[in-house]
Amino acid sequence: MSTLDATHNPALRSWVHSANEAHTDFPIQNLPFGRFRTPGEGWRIGVAIGEQVLDCKRAAAAGSWSVEVSAWLVPLAAGDLNAFMALGANARRGVRSALSAALAEGSAQQAALTGCLAPQDAVELGVPCHIGDYTDFYVGIHHATAVGKLFRPDNPLLPNYKWVPIGYHGRASSVVASGTPIRRPKGQTAGSAAPNFGPSQRLDLELELGFLIGTGNALGEPVSIAQAEDHLFGVTLFNDWSARDIQAWEYQPLGPFLSKSFGSTISPWVVTLEALAPFRVPLLQRPDGDPQPLPYLDDAGNRERGAFDIRVQVQLQTQSMRQQGLAPVTISTSSTAAAAYWTAAQLIAHHTVNGCNLQPGDLFGSGTLSGANRDQAGSLLEMTVGGKEPITLPNGETRTFLQDGDRLALVGSCERPGARRIGFGPCVGTIVPARG
Amino acid sequence: MSTLDATHNPALRSWVHSANEAHTDFPIQNLPFGRFRTPGEGWRIGVAIGEQVLDCKRAAAAGSWSVEVSAWLVPLAAGDLNAFMALGANARRGVRSALSAALAEGSAQQAALTGCLAPQDAVELGVPCHIGDYTDFYVGIHHATAVGKLFRPDNPLLPNYKWVPIGYHGRASSVVASGTPIRRPKGQTAGSAAPNFGPSQRLDLELELGFLIGTGNALGEPVSIAQAEDHLFGVTLFNDWSARDIQAWEYQPLGPFLSKSFGSTISPWVVTLEALAPFRVPLLQRPDGDPQPLPYLDDAGNRERGAFDIRVQVQLQTQSMRQQGLAPVTISTSSTAAAAYWTAAQLIAHHTVNGCNLQPGDLFGSGTLSGANRDQAGSLLEMTVGGKEPITLPNGETRTFLQDGDRLALVGSCERPGARRIGFGPCVGTIVPARG
Repeated sequence: MSTLDATHNPALRSWVHSANEAHTDFPIQNLPFGRFRTPGEGWRIGVAIGEQVLDCKRAAAAGSWSVEVSAWLVPLAAGDLNAFMALGANARRGVRSALSAALAEGSAQQAALTGCLAPQDAVELGVPCHIGDYTDFYVGIHHATAVGKLFRPDNPLLPNYKWVPIGYHGRASSVVASGTPIRRPKGQTAGSAAPNFGPSQRLDLELELGFLIGTGNALGEPVSIAQAEDHLFGVTLFNDWSARDIQAWEYQPLGPFLSKSFGSTISPWVVTLEALAPFRVPLLQRPDGDPQPLPYLDDAGNRERGAFDIRVQVQLQTQSMRQQGLAPVTISTSSTAAAAYWTAAQLIAHHTVNGCNLQPGDLFGSGTLSGANRDQAGSLLEMTVGGKEPITLPNGETRTFLQDGDRLALVGSCERPGARRIGFGPCVGTIVPARG
Repeated sequence: MSTLDATHNPALRSWVHSANEAHTDFPIQNLPFGRFRTPGEGWRIGVAIGEQVLDCKRAAAAGSWSVEVSAWLVPLAAGDLNAFMALGANARRGVRSALSAALAEGSAQQAALTGCLAPQDAVELGVPCHIGDYTDFYVGIHHATAVGKLFRPDNPLLPNYKWVPIGYHGRASSVVASGTPIRRPKGQTAGSAAPNFGPSQRLDLELELGFLIGTGNALGEPVSIAQAEDHLFGVTLFNDWSARDIQAWEYQPLGPFLSKSFGSTISPWVVTLEALAPFRVPLLQRPDGDPQPLPYLDDAGNRERGAFDIRVQVQLQTQSMRQQGLAPVTISTSSTAAAAYWTAAQLIAHHTVNGCNLQPGDLFGSGTLSGANRDQAGSLLEMTVGGKEPITLPNGETRTFLQDGDRLALVGSCERPGARRIGFGPCVGTIVPARG
């Protein structure tokens, strides 16, 4: 469990001036990891600081580090975030402390590390690590209820929901970096005599968090709930784009498949558990009267801080809005702690209780994190009540589902009195037309 | 499309004498690829020949190869089957031809290559390649019907079945090599007031083929049905172990998850499309009156040879049988061509029609390949009618589902007049007790 230390001091400032601006996502209290490249060079691991990225390869060589920190920097310098993730929480905390000191105002390392910075604007940001397996969960109880209502008005939540952290395997190969265009998928949809085939007409977003696994577990060896969080490296934003019409026709009896696997967007920076430590809160979604979790899911020791209090917004900018010079409009604002029924630790304990082996860099999608109200919904399916009630945008356009040219951004941040605000950076995708 | 050539000549014999025995799985007409290691050495790529494995690293160095073949051998010598798979059919055929000539009786390469052989008995065989993503399909129509009957007696096949090659994402990390023990999973199962938790009581096998992808496709770029088979590298046996009680409680609404991800066994040798060329037959399972496939799935040019005629057996040996010195007993015999409703090419076209990107080494499970009769069933769920009618073994033991100590083997072979018989090698797993 992470506790607060000098790296969280809200008064701490960096010699990278842009990190001290009030609205930066990347103050010195954040220090998230990502993967970047510049033209003609391979992928490298970087740490976001203000508007810059600290190149770990150069920093490992140019900075002055203890023997211990130097060893931890080896996989980062080699461009292998997964190998660093595998080292566990101790290495992650040690590197965080060292980088915090080195990037702080007054550090003797300023001269050596200045040349290790590159402007984020000038680099390409990739998927932050190699994702071996990706699992998508369904922890948003308002989402599960709202979607269930569309199919089963009298019985929206299935009997297993409050017992089982429902999840399913997703497609890892099509998890793409923020900014990657999302091509509208073609597929089969329900028809009368025969199914229809063509571009999806009900293309949607799903506002999720991405949990990235640090240390793995051996096949056959479950991770106990008490140790589960030790296996979590950090958190990203995640958009699990969904073709609702393809999904409705294909998903019985084995679950969503092509309705999801055409692309899923992950934000470029992994915000570590340590950076999130000031923003831990209880889960809000297990009211009195709900069943207590089974013992293997009962996170008694962590109940008061099992969840992350992250404010997430969905921003939409249509092609017309861009042509008219209009800024993106926020169509939804949600809080992850208020939306989730299960904690990340519970997801890890559940995923491994059968002996399934997790590996460093594995991705868990949280599931759509909708709040209780429609303006807190994490999908258009919910915002428009299954496409029946369009939303109206500031320029008079309406939307039920996504149109070609629509650009969607998920934006996330953590704020509370007494802590420095941190953010996640963008999770953006623009819909491009289906192949002719 | 593969056609027959000199490598298929049934009269062709090898200077590796065990490859000439009538019942070997690995005559010179087969030449499947796998991954092996010996104590103290890293994983290498090998080719099975009789009771031996040809070490590709040593063979690349010791043999005499054309410039072209030498280039194709580079990834094999480096131990990277995925990189070789990515080279496509031309490289695979070229290496096959070169190895066939080099291993044939009378080859001038015998002296050079003899030192590149190791007995299969003395090496460890692994998962044949790195599996990035694993997708499990549901092409066995008798299986889908029989399982559907258990849940929906009046309407066993869902309306989408004959239109959509139903599939779902599986867990890649827990795909294990033949011989790896399978630990009985624990999990939640349906209860009265609350779910039960404990070791699965309905542990089952699923007899499947594994299709391994060769060349991939770019995200957003579907593979046409006409080109689909060009993306297939080869075929293995595959046992998708399943915990039926966990599955029944967890699978709604998003599909099977922990009921499958505790372990899936793949056979060690990838039998190439070329080796299977003599055993291509039409699919038997689209009778008159069934809908024609939608155009993107209509494999008109390949209809007469879209399927593989592979005979597969399920063999069971309980712990008591081993103690009594009893040989494994065959509890089911099935033909893959008679069981499947969709071809591998159709699965590839379907998987990519939404733009999903396949990558070299991706695994497709076919789904359970049960025949129409109970003694052709690919799962105990079917053989025992949902556990209601136990099967009796030669020593008087009975089974509904698998008990601790049960050892299951899938065995596959191809035979037809005028062709040399080939086989797949073992796909074996033994159930070990749940963690205490």
